[in-house]
Amino acid sequence: MVQHARNVYLEDIPLEDARARLKSALQAAGRWEALPGESVPLPAALGRITATPVWAKLSSPHYHAAAMDGYAVWAADTVNATETRPLKLRVIPRQDVAGHGPGCAIPVNTGDPLPPDTNAVIMIEHVQPVGDQIEIRAAVASWQHVRPLGEDLVATELVLPVNHRIRPVDLGALAGSGHVTVSVRRRPLVAVIPTGSELLPAGEMPQPGQIIEYNSLVLAAQVQEAGGRAEVHDIVPDDVPKLQAAIELALSQSPDLLLLLSGSSAGSKDHTAALVREMGDLLVHGIAVRPGHPVIIGMIGRVPVIGVPGYPVSAALTGELLVEPLLAQWQGRPSAFDTRTHIQATTTRKIQSPVGDDDFVRVVVAPVGERLLATPLSRGAGVITSLVRADGLAHIPRFSEGIDMGHPVDVMLYHAPEVIQRTLLLMGSHDPMLDLLGQYFAEHLPGWRLVSGHVGSLGGLVALRRREAHAAGVHLLNPQTGNYNVDDVHKYLPDEPLMLVTFAHREQGLMIAPDNPLSIQSLNDLPRVRFVNRQRGAGTRVLLDYELEKRGLSQSDIVGYEREEYTHLAVAAAVASGAADCGLGVRSAALAMNLGFVPVGWERYDLVLPSAYHEHPGVQALVDLLNGGKFPAALAEQPGYDIRETGQVQYRQ
Amino acid sequence: MVQHARNVYLEDIPLEDARARLKSALQAAGRWEALPGESVPLPAALGRITATPVWAKLSSPHYHAAAMDGYAVWAADTVNATETRPLKLRVIPRQDVAGHGPGCAIPVNTGDPLPPDTNAVIMIEHVQPVGDQIEIRAAVASWQHVRPLGEDLVATELVLPVNHRIRPVDLGALAGSGHVTVSVRRRPLVAVIPTGSELLPAGEMPQPGQIIEYNSLVLAAQVQEAGGRAEVHDIVPDDVPKLQAAIELALSQSPDLLLLLSGSSAGSKDHTAALVREMGDLLVHGIAVRPGHPVIIGMIGRVPVIGVPGYPVSAALTGELLVEPLLAQWQGRPSAFDTRTHIQATTTRKIQSPVGDDDFVRVVVAPVGERLLATPLSRGAGVITSLVRADGLAHIPRFSEGIDMGHPVDVMLYHAPEVIQRTLLLMGSHDPMLDLLGQYFAEHLPGWRLVSGHVGSLGGLVALRRREAHAAGVHLLNPQTGNYNVDDVHKYLPDEPLMLVTFAHREQGLMIAPDNPLSIQSLNDLPRVRFVNRQRGAGTRVLLDYELEKRGLSQSDIVGYEREEYTHLAVAAAVASGAADCGLGVRSAALAMNLGFVPVGWERYDLVLPSAYHEHPGVQALVDLLNGGKFPAALAEQPGYDIRETGQVQYRQ
Repeated sequence: MVQHARNVYLEDIPLEDARARLKSALQAAGRWEALPGESVPLPAALGRITATPVWAKLSSPHYHAAAMDGYAVWAADTVNATETRPLKLRVIPRQDVAGHGPGCAIPVNTGDPLPPDTNAVIMIEHVQPVGDQIEIRAAVASWQHVRPLGEDLVATELVLPVNHRIRPVDLGALAGSGHVTVSVRRRPLVAVIPTGSELLPAGEMPQPGQIIEYNSLVLAAQVQEAGGRAEVHDIVPDDVPKLQAAIELALSQSPDLLLLLSGSSAGSKDHTAALVREMGDLLVHGIAVRPGHPVIIGMIGRVPVIGVPGYPVSAALTGELLVEPLLAQWQGRPSAFDTRTHIQATTTRKIQSPVGDDDFVRVVVAPVGERLLATPLSRGAGVITSLVRADGLAHIPRFSEGIDMGHPVDVMLYHAPEVIQRTLLLMGSHDPMLDLLGQYFAEHLPGWRLVSGHVGSLGGLVALRRREAHAAGVHLLNPQTGNYNVDDVHKYLPDEPLMLVTFAHREQGLMIAPDNPLSIQSLNDLPRVRFVNRQRGAGTRVLLDYELEKRGLSQSDIVGYEREEYTHLAVAAAVASGAADCGLGVRSAALAMNLGFVPVGWERYDLVLPSAYHEHPGVQALVDLLNGGKFPAALAEQPGYDIRETGQVQYRQ
Repeated sequence: MVQHARNVYLEDIPLEDARARLKSALQAAGRWEALPGESVPLPAALGRITATPVWAKLSSPHYHAAAMDGYAVWAADTVNATETRPLKLRVIPRQDVAGHGPGCAIPVNTGDPLPPDTNAVIMIEHVQPVGDQIEIRAAVASWQHVRPLGEDLVATELVLPVNHRIRPVDLGALAGSGHVTVSVRRRPLVAVIPTGSELLPAGEMPQPGQIIEYNSLVLAAQVQEAGGRAEVHDIVPDDVPKLQAAIELALSQSPDLLLLLSGSSAGSKDHTAALVREMGDLLVHGIAVRPGHPVIIGMIGRVPVIGVPGYPVSAALTGELLVEPLLAQWQGRPSAFDTRTHIQATTTRKIQSPVGDDDFVRVVVAPVGERLLATPLSRGAGVITSLVRADGLAHIPRFSEGIDMGHPVDVMLYHAPEVIQRTLLLMGSHDPMLDLLGQYFAEHLPGWRLVSGHVGSLGGLVALRRREAHAAGVHLLNPQTGNYNVDDVHKYLPDEPLMLVTFAHREQGLMIAPDNPLSIQSLNDLPRVRFVNRQRGAGTRVLLDYELEKRGLSQSDIVGYEREEYTHLAVAAAVASGAADCGLGVRSAALAMNLGFVPVGWERYDLVLPSAYHEHPGVQALVDLLNGGKFPAALAEQPGYDIRETGQVQYRQ
């Protein structure tokens, strides 16, 4: 571990400039053009990119073919046939056709070549056999029911342009026009070297300070999706000679691109830059993008090198912003950035962004009422689940200070817009069973998804008021009346027609270390232990305040009252790690983390369903799910949940 | 070959009913549910579908980690630090941390675990080293610059839902939460048997009546794209015992699905239906879809069988309509039909559709002016290039009689809408060099495409008048003046500001058999040979009529005057096949098909560019390309082209 012997970045340059420097260096090295083609058999060509235009070798069909079962005739022979004066034509078997005179008909099946001196086919349904003749009651036009030679493709015509991604039907057109192989762009080879002494290969149990190395897995998969081949090397510790040896080994396999994946420590990043400078040219050291600043770009010989930052979101975004576009360039195809769907959405929160940085914010996108909403997810560069959950990426350009709540933002979608359209957005209090609900929801309403945002009970009501969610999950105790939910719903949404349907009763209590070493028996013990709280607006925090007041305890008596977490599981994790001695939360969270649990009481968790969305298929599915069947049964099996009122309408207004 | 011993279809049933019958049969056989999972290592899981929800085994991070390089402190120790009254903290190396008292600071790098009794990190940039102490000038909040345990994922939390397609970032989340493998849906195995005595494997030279078999290639690729594995068997001739043996062999490998690909002849289709009925249950014999009627669905034991029609478009559409949705069902994911983008476009032609049929029409989609236009492509079931060129599929439901020109039609897109947006639509006269132009266009304006429709010169002018194209290619002789293009442009588009830019001069002439067996010397010979004409409105036909009149020849003197083709290459193909003795067309088409050529004269082929689209990037690229550089040079090398005026503005109005 290198202690504070740090390179200060010379400058963070704009993304555009970084790309331009890389392009110039590649052009200078003769490495910017698309890769040459390699000939592959058609069955192996699916998804590959054509390296040249492909022209037809054969016409298709390569002869005039009957397009129906029936009789081939010379159209001019039939001109006198009418409904009232049927015409008879002599039937001649195909093998006897040579030298036949006019006025005859030759039986053909679909696909047969037209016999000589015929130019039309009469469908079998339209003739009347009479001995060795057929009778027809209408004239036929020349070329009727004939697939003329070259109807599909004429030899020498363009079948596929260059730089075309080969789809299943393209393979058919290639084969049909006489091709057995096709010249496609070589797959770029990408060497991937993870570096960092703190990194541990997946599959081993990490100790504190150790990090499971998975950026190589993510980047290799990105390379594969982008049409390249990735060669992942072993993890190299923060040791300059070892890293140099690893780079030399990787380069000996002639990769098109080398990715050096830094660990998250400052030390390894600096090694990489110094070494690239020593072994070749360091072109870029720091790019003004968020997340992802400490990107390195260089050239070692003719091989471009990208130093990928260690934080997983930064790493994945570096793959999207720099690696994929380069692989696209080499394959002669547009980058995914240019072909993905962009939409305009309304941001539900203020997105702050420093001037000078290109900021890429992960967002969930869902239509609510007339508006398409973009809700920013966690912006931490370490939170890879924010990319997993993201529907798209909002780009805040570097000359912008950010985007105010309610303003439009451009979002590049990761899914088809159709997926986005089929979303039910549930905001409000966190409950671990919402994930379970989501599973049953997707099963009940195929193609749809339930997206839940954890903003606390009050946050859920505010979201409904702003028309930023279809439903809200709440458990809000009125300290005066002891009632749940009804009073706050009425207070925050006085004019909104809605109903309140019970999700479940659930048990709240103190989550404590498994063997209860501090002998915590009730909330009265809080002043002598370290507590971890929920955020302002959370129903669990309201419950805590209510219980404290009942006991005559003050917030300032509680060590850790100001330490806020956003979910029950995060509170449980804080207790499990020893960072706190206890926290208030639902029994299921304590169980999930193998913690002890001191019951405090049962509370009612309801869903608020505004009438404005009652016709929404997702809302209807939600109501169906709560009203019996598999989901309540599954919920009832979870300790700490009681379904006695699940699905009941508690209140309407 | 079976001559007219045909099964009459009992009924063509609606697509919906056919799907319902298949679903019921699969449910009865216990084969409708999604396939069970198989455990695969993460690097092999890209693109696979989760078979169960995946929950986190480890929290991520699994310890409280420093998020910055700097010093770990106990936040409460810093409350008195201010700008004017800096606070000093004793620096203690990490290894000496046990039992240290309050008021100290421990150096940490990003990613390090927080030392015991610390709960915040001060960035190295914000401290001043003073001997073995540091000086700070501001208090820090608890948990500042700390990535708390579980910030990304808390153990037991949902990482990925069931039925989720695994992307690169998902692999990261799986590895980071302690997984090394993941349970994904087994890939369905699909056996593919092509049948038909007329079929020839790709790579052999077909004789008239023989067809290169490529439907198996297309269907196997569709299966692969849909996440399945295809096992393609050898072609089976139209022989019932051989087909039965092939089916039995295929079934012995326990496929999930069996596809029987009929040849195009009626015979093979009937074999298939009879055999399915004999070996199992025939559920469907004929579906009311266009193209694709003669689809067969059955069950042999527990294995569903789909009989796929022989025409390539019918076969590919059967893959999309029936095979892919079934593979999607088995993998627990939505069908591509449900996730592809649908748009509303305006049809530029009347689309007729018989009531009772679900009609799937291949269309090209392009925005012109304010409108998004859908132009139907050839509807022949044999024209696979219509699928290659299609941007999407317009669905005309079975209760509709079709859609009038100018009316909206729903189109399921094969590409991202972004690709559609970047289109230049050129309608008008066919020239073989338009494909060459398209290649240079895509190179000149990356990400854009030139789509050309061959509707003849007059058709191009009409398209401009209707605002259904950005540009038109024309070569229209005024028989009175001998001038090209200007007069007709003025006549058909009198009020449209535009300019006329020359594409090239090109040589027209009679395309004849290579050795000129009929000694055709000039147009005067036409009355004694078989001619093939271009369609009404084609500039080449105008030229023919002009030349005929000059020579005192009548249209009725010409055998084949009424036989119309839409492109120069199609005319050349008709001559090459012997279906006609000669036709009028450009020299390049004669050369492409190795034909002889009797020159008739040079003509000017211009592009009509309305001012309304002058700002369009594609129009600007077109003008750039014609004004020098690589494209005119390449054109000049083609026999029969003269670039002396290429790029010149001939006329403005």
